[in-house]
Amino acid sequence: MIEINFSKSADGLVPAIAQDYRTGDVLMLAYVNIEALKKTVETGKAHYWSRSRAKLWLKGESSGHVQVIKDILVDCDEDCIIYKVDQVGGASCHKGYSTCFYRRITEDGFEIVAEKVFDPSQVYG
Amino acid sequence: MIEINFSKSADGLVPAIAQDYRTGDVLMLAYVNIEALKKTVETGKAHYWSRSRAKLWLKGESSGHVQVIKDILVDCDEDCIIYKVDQVGGASCHKGYSTCFYRRITEDGFEIVAEKVFDPSQVYG
Repeated sequence: MIEINFSKSADGLVPAIAQDYRTGDVLMLAYVNIEALKKTVETGKAHYWSRSRAKLWLKGESSGHVQVIKDILVDCDEDCIIYKVDQVGGASCHKGYSTCFYRRITEDGFEIVAEKVFDPSQVYG
Repeated sequence: MIEINFSKSADGLVPAIAQDYRTGDVLMLAYVNIEALKKTVETGKAHYWSRSRAKLWLKGESSGHVQVIKDILVDCDEDCIIYKVDQVGGASCHKGYSTCFYRRITEDGFEIVAEKVFDPSQVYG
């Protein structure tokens, strides 16, 4: 059923872009293997493969900020996917911003362009 | 000036998401190294590192469908970027669609959800 090309990268992972299904904002990018993608399709909640922890990762398992799947898109080369999601809690970033892409690159360094939605110390303890 | 963490992946590349700056549509995902990112900042046109050709790639060098940079965002881990772009010609995909993500995954396979903007045989000859 799922025809994604996991063989292109040495680690068998493909990037998955999480995009807010209402606003179109790109929330984050993480990686999936076949296990994570199957789990996502089965449960309707975004799962990824955590490269740092080397394990299946239900986004929001600590914070409660799960991503409810609205649609899954695939690109022309079948080596990248988009999760269109409803972001519970309104924030995808562990630093408290609605999106992980809360900074722009300028000639003088990074400039913050998003609002903080929550205080990470309150959510992660 | 550019503080991106290129050391996380074995090949020194980070994913770059091209997003339409007007509609928010995700157009494509490709990869950049420091050379491609610097060239993008210098020229104001999206450059990537082609993994298949192992060379610097000006998007649109064959088709003329260049991507004019409106903004560059970076994520919390500094290992992924977004190019917010004005897509010349209205199409980013070499298959003729406005976006490379022109299909959704369904239980019965892929379903096309985008419109063809051009005929690839006319553009690439």
